[in-house]
Amino acid sequence: MTLTAIIIGGDAAGMSAASKIKREVEDADVIVFEKTQTISYSACGMPYWIAGIIDEEEDLLIVTPEKARSKRGLDVRLGHVVTAIDPDAKTVSVTNLEQDAAFTQPYDVLVIATGARPMLPPIPGMDLPGVFVLRAFADSQRIHRYLAEYDPESAVIIGGGYIGVEMAEALRERDMDVHIVEMLPQIMPNFDEEMVQDASKHLQEQGVELHLGTSAQGVEQRGERLAVKLAGGRELVCEMVIVSVGVQPNSELAAEAGLALTVKNAIKVDDHMRTSAADIWAAGDCVAHRHAVLEEETWIPLAPSANKGGRVAGENAAGGDAAMSDILGTAVVKVFDYTLSVTGLTERAARESGKFGPEGEEVGAATITAYDRGHYWPGASKIKVKLVADRRNGKILGGQLSGKAGVNKRIDIIATAIAAGMTVDELAMLDLSYAPPYSAPYDPVQVCANVASKQVRG
Amino acid sequence: MTLTAIIIGGDAAGMSAASKIKREVEDADVIVFEKTQTISYSACGMPYWIAGIIDEEEDLLIVTPEKARSKRGLDVRLGHVVTAIDPDAKTVSVTNLEQDAAFTQPYDVLVIATGARPMLPPIPGMDLPGVFVLRAFADSQRIHRYLAEYDPESAVIIGGGYIGVEMAEALRERDMDVHIVEMLPQIMPNFDEEMVQDASKHLQEQGVELHLGTSAQGVEQRGERLAVKLAGGRELVCEMVIVSVGVQPNSELAAEAGLALTVKNAIKVDDHMRTSAADIWAAGDCVAHRHAVLEEETWIPLAPSANKGGRVAGENAAGGDAAMSDILGTAVVKVFDYTLSVTGLTERAARESGKFGPEGEEVGAATITAYDRGHYWPGASKIKVKLVADRRNGKILGGQLSGKAGVNKRIDIIATAIAAGMTVDELAMLDLSYAPPYSAPYDPVQVCANVASKQVRG
Repeated sequence: MTLTAIIIGGDAAGMSAASKIKREVEDADVIVFEKTQTISYSACGMPYWIAGIIDEEEDLLIVTPEKARSKRGLDVRLGHVVTAIDPDAKTVSVTNLEQDAAFTQPYDVLVIATGARPMLPPIPGMDLPGVFVLRAFADSQRIHRYLAEYDPESAVIIGGGYIGVEMAEALRERDMDVHIVEMLPQIMPNFDEEMVQDASKHLQEQGVELHLGTSAQGVEQRGERLAVKLAGGRELVCEMVIVSVGVQPNSELAAEAGLALTVKNAIKVDDHMRTSAADIWAAGDCVAHRHAVLEEETWIPLAPSANKGGRVAGENAAGGDAAMSDILGTAVVKVFDYTLSVTGLTERAARESGKFGPEGEEVGAATITAYDRGHYWPGASKIKVKLVADRRNGKILGGQLSGKAGVNKRIDIIATAIAAGMTVDELAMLDLSYAPPYSAPYDPVQVCANVASKQVRG
Repeated sequence: MTLTAIIIGGDAAGMSAASKIKREVEDADVIVFEKTQTISYSACGMPYWIAGIIDEEEDLLIVTPEKARSKRGLDVRLGHVVTAIDPDAKTVSVTNLEQDAAFTQPYDVLVIATGARPMLPPIPGMDLPGVFVLRAFADSQRIHRYLAEYDPESAVIIGGGYIGVEMAEALRERDMDVHIVEMLPQIMPNFDEEMVQDASKHLQEQGVELHLGTSAQGVEQRGERLAVKLAGGRELVCEMVIVSVGVQPNSELAAEAGLALTVKNAIKVDDHMRTSAADIWAAGDCVAHRHAVLEEETWIPLAPSANKGGRVAGENAAGGDAAMSDILGTAVVKVFDYTLSVTGLTERAARESGKFGPEGEEVGAATITAYDRGHYWPGASKIKVKLVADRRNGKILGGQLSGKAGVNKRIDIIATAIAAGMTVDELAMLDLSYAPPYSAPYDPVQVCANVASKQVRG
């Protein structure tokens, strides 16, 4: 009997699952229902297409539906939205949007990869023309078209996280006046404040105006322009608004089918990406993962875990026995000439977690500044490294880097060390590479580990 | 009673040990006997000073004797050579070279950091003017002076390892004709052959002529020039010869004092850097370290382990209890626009070790090529990654990278994974950072780990 596998959602997790199932079970019918007209796009590349750094829209399309069909043998159905799952009957209800026609599709195995969607703040004006979110590929097309058509000169970005900061750079690349409005006293709230100071200053030097510790109260039309009203009465008049205040999991479909949800309403899965219902797996931005440091479920929707989770779900749906690894929320972001990277817990998150003393008093942290290469090497620049550790045993809880060079892959050294349960002392003693064009005999990460070690020992 | 600590050798390991002792025991008398006029220089930076990439000789001097005395409180004695150690009497015999005067100096604790010296092949002409080695700081000064004085137009480099390749680049930077003569069929013999192919080709494109699989039989004077005679009769006429065929540990002093030596005649130390004699520690290029993968003593003299070993020796000499970590021989080298990096065992070394099946049949290996960044990112380039693993359990034994960008710190991810005893599957599932300017959702290292995993299982 042929295996019928249904995948809901054709982006990173869904397509990883679909492709994996087809590779494992050659004669399986693998049907991907995707409600939009796009599958498998590089969401993280969209700001750079908008910026004009990436020329071709096609560059962002990793696998086209045609290729998915012809090369991978997947039955990709665009414009198909799944409206209900019946775990007992093992069917899904599907609407073909173009024909506005509904049908029921039986499955043997089902993978839910419905992703996440942008949140909108509960303020007026979010539906005005010129107000955009950036999540789906169609969002980036809308923004791109708007820029081409109206050539706006100014934008207000509501929310100073990854997307907000990347869009600020993208729109500055197009010579627009750019404002970021962020409710918190810092941009990039998943970093400790002192680790974003340099990048924050750099953003301002690059012409981005920051409005921190204040919130947008609403957006209003002002003739042909838009006015973003800030708490306190100030108005920012602009021609375009990007709303990037966060995302939430698309878990309603799963919830309505009786599947268990967990933290932040993300779908609950075990380490095999199994949901609470038989023969249903889930992966990607709609699910929670176990956090390697917190040792509990967390919801940190990022592309690498979507890809890996999708693959694991696919392998298991095909009858395999693959386990997903715990996540660390490792991430890197470009801020013009600066790079920021993070893994594991920030000092603030560690203190607030309640897992390291009631007041977080067992959280140790050290921050150092060191040259990314031999100090005498032309172009050598200073980078900032922060390590967070458990004072009781020296175990690394998290790391952050900031600087103009050498920031991206160093975070992965720390991520690997955390995944291995290493202490700051062990990190300090690792046999890492050295040559003057690339590093120092003690890598900056190890210099920081040495300082953290003293901090931890008291 | 004041602690008297004697350190033999004032470079990376010796100065690390000396500084650590003084930090731990403030009132200790810490005497560093250094036979040359230079301490604590960046040996790895010397080729770049010769190239003119680094302008100032002083840039290579990390700690001057004056600073070591005034800021660190160390009693640095230049031009002092230790000629004998008496472990029973706890004294060293010292000659002050300038005065040609000998004296005996008692110690409470002794750290031997005598380093290594270049080997010369047993061929005629090695002492001709214009024939150089590059190891001590004075060597780089001699080469620098020779270049300034004679402005030679061509050089033959005997030996195609790290120093040979770096010197080839340095002399090409000065527009000289450069030849490398290497006995083995490849440059950089601590890499697997296919991993140096691109760099090898690149070297040639940059104008370096490679003579592989042939040996120099001697150097002769030819008027004002030098002739390097190759096996088979060919002669390379040039104005300068660099001999870089390897180094050997300076362990004679230790051996004469009855201290145990081990592999390659390096000084034997335990994980606390203790020698076989009481109150004597040793560190740096003169000692063997335990190899994390081979689980036996190996001699791989590199700066990072010299620094760490020196510090550990110093801490223990000061009464502490520090342990040195096992080494992996992690290294990175610049080859013009290329970077090569390595950690752990090459496939060849793994097979030849006899630890993975009599014929090395338990050694698995995978090599992949992938973009270092999002494939659509301007300037993205392909890098080659190789992983070597134990087929019996999937444990990573080694890794190598080659490419124009993103090669240096990625090797440290692999080094960290090996130190943690990870398998290729675990490496493939690590939560590493991703953004299009820096990586792909699956880092190239993980793409390789996935392929290696199949190789290992299959």
